[in-house]
Amino acid sequence: MGILKFSVPEIFLGRNSMKYAGVCARRLGAKKIFFVSDPGLESTGWVDAVFDIFDHEKLKWVYYSDISSNPRDSQIEEGARLYEKHGCDVVFALGGGSPMDAAKGIALVTSNGGRVHDYEGANRIQKPLPPMVFMPSTASSGSDVSQFAIITDMERQVKMSIISRTLVPNVSIIDPTLLTTKPRDLIIAAAVDALSHAVEAHVSRLAFPLTEVHSLRAIELIMKYLPLTLEDNSLANLEQLSIAGTSAAMAFSNASLGIDHALAHTLGGVLDVLHGIIHPILLPSVMRYNLPKCVDKLAEIGKVMIGGSMGSPEATALAGIEALENYFKSLGVSTRLRDIVPERSKIPQICEMATFDSCLLSNPREADAEDMMSICHDAW
Amino acid sequence: MGILKFSVPEIFLGRNSMKYAGVCARRLGAKKIFFVSDPGLESTGWVDAVFDIFDHEKLKWVYYSDISSNPRDSQIEEGARLYEKHGCDVVFALGGGSPMDAAKGIALVTSNGGRVHDYEGANRIQKPLPPMVFMPSTASSGSDVSQFAIITDMERQVKMSIISRTLVPNVSIIDPTLLTTKPRDLIIAAAVDALSHAVEAHVSRLAFPLTEVHSLRAIELIMKYLPLTLEDNSLANLEQLSIAGTSAAMAFSNASLGIDHALAHTLGGVLDVLHGIIHPILLPSVMRYNLPKCVDKLAEIGKVMIGGSMGSPEATALAGIEALENYFKSLGVSTRLRDIVPERSKIPQICEMATFDSCLLSNPREADAEDMMSICHDAW
Repeated sequence: MGILKFSVPEIFLGRNSMKYAGVCARRLGAKKIFFVSDPGLESTGWVDAVFDIFDHEKLKWVYYSDISSNPRDSQIEEGARLYEKHGCDVVFALGGGSPMDAAKGIALVTSNGGRVHDYEGANRIQKPLPPMVFMPSTASSGSDVSQFAIITDMERQVKMSIISRTLVPNVSIIDPTLLTTKPRDLIIAAAVDALSHAVEAHVSRLAFPLTEVHSLRAIELIMKYLPLTLEDNSLANLEQLSIAGTSAAMAFSNASLGIDHALAHTLGGVLDVLHGIIHPILLPSVMRYNLPKCVDKLAEIGKVMIGGSMGSPEATALAGIEALENYFKSLGVSTRLRDIVPERSKIPQICEMATFDSCLLSNPREADAEDMMSICHDAW
Repeated sequence: MGILKFSVPEIFLGRNSMKYAGVCARRLGAKKIFFVSDPGLESTGWVDAVFDIFDHEKLKWVYYSDISSNPRDSQIEEGARLYEKHGCDVVFALGGGSPMDAAKGIALVTSNGGRVHDYEGANRIQKPLPPMVFMPSTASSGSDVSQFAIITDMERQVKMSIISRTLVPNVSIIDPTLLTTKPRDLIIAAAVDALSHAVEAHVSRLAFPLTEVHSLRAIELIMKYLPLTLEDNSLANLEQLSIAGTSAAMAFSNASLGIDHALAHTLGGVLDVLHGIIHPILLPSVMRYNLPKCVDKLAEIGKVMIGGSMGSPEATALAGIEALENYFKSLGVSTRLRDIVPERSKIPQICEMATFDSCLLSNPREADAEDMMSICHDAW
């Protein structure tokens, strides 16, 4: 076993934990907060609620919401320009993965200079970032917990993975109340994203006991509480999805991911589709590809999926993959790649680009572009 | 569910992770390190090894080792005086719970003023502490991960529990190589301490999913790897005990403890015995006392202890307690209170004092002095 690193933010989790937003920012030295969110959140009223909290704490703020659903390099650059112009000192993000990843990009560029592209890959950030307080509005992306930021390079049409311990925010405030305004399809996309984090982190080459307990528990909670939430959008159920998403993020942030995410990042860059809808399509095929290299780990997952064991670890693993496919079908989401990719001829290019994604490094089985093409054809 | 808080340091875990000691201190702004250890560690050569690492990094240091096995208020005051006199900026601790808790006390007094007694109890620290980097030499106390510091008030002869999120060190460097120089009895005392952390945290009123996965895994690992380590003191086995101790600490730091620790702190204050030897004596009796209030949680523990389930949760829980008693007996440690308390007449005073310990607040079943006396008599 090599030297393992485990890093997570300070976490506040529970109903109305939102009230800590101002206190946490102030404790980190905030005088003028750079507040990142997006127009979707504005319409729910949560952005106003945070304004009120900051005002109550007598904290100044600059608000920036020019963030698209896959945040772009140009939006980071504009944000960093505003941060510096107004002399902000703490970055606060409210939203799903997009505002949070954008906030990380802005914090990165404003403290380390250059362009966000300069930091693509793992461990390329040298200087400390300004303090970051994040409040996720989905139970999934894990950006509030993780060392990852995903930013789209518009010219190359590729989602860049930037991975560094310094991208872990100082504080994550996880308030399930925020999930009550999410529509059904976004609840599903979010939970499925968290599930894919947990599955890929669990079989990752970098997984270790401190991450494995979280990945396995996340899988268990999502399998159970996503269907319950779709029946009854209660705070008690949403709270369990919040815990699941947080556990999944604690796992993947420290153990990294695999082929499913390498391909999802590339597909997301080329097609600009919602990240969460890609996993039901790719994940089972990726798990089947990985099986020869991680039978026991996939059997652990299978045991959670089917609630028991079959005759052999391999049989349990396969039964788990099948159960997962049925689970996805029961959610009524797309499960075939042809549903989201307009032309099959795009696949070789997508797979070629995916070979450059950092997530590939921790996948349990090596894969080149051709291997990923076979996965995509399996999922077609 | 209320608002849950989860806070752990950045963790480096693995063989030779010690090499990060200087780098981590420097990253936190160190120019002159206040280095706390104890004479026992000096004789193993690990103190010299750390001097070399600091010298190699061109970091200055002041060394302080006047720490007894239950660190005393006066030792904290002397340490704080030296810290200020020499203008130190980062606190580094190498050792078991005693040097680490002492280092926390010194960091606390030097930044917040007054006496360490002023902060007894939960959440009484107002100002930030200097950065702390800890390197544990036992796989147990969890002080390197936790929000706790235990300091003896010599006048009152009581171990004070000081609990605050600001007592979580910035970095914990967990190098199992350090355990290779530990004698058998200290390996046992340490692992048993970690086991008691995990059991009490698991049934705590403050337990929640992010802590429960760690408490349960810690129990599983210690049950398996302590006996293996006593047969073969290999790095692979010691590594698993390190992971177990860290998991247990992640659980108890965020979920707190219970009656076993309230009594252990008081016994330790009055008798000055090694903390780890108290748990085999008290823990099974405490679990039996708690049973009516946490059957399901104790059944989860029982399932790990016996590797399966009995007819009912209560039967599984009781079988687990019995298995734990047999486990302690197999280790050859004292399992009766009469072995360590010279006079039975001391018990009422000890139980009276224990009612003031903060750990009592999170115990699943309320207990007054009389209840604790019945536990002590059960364990006599």
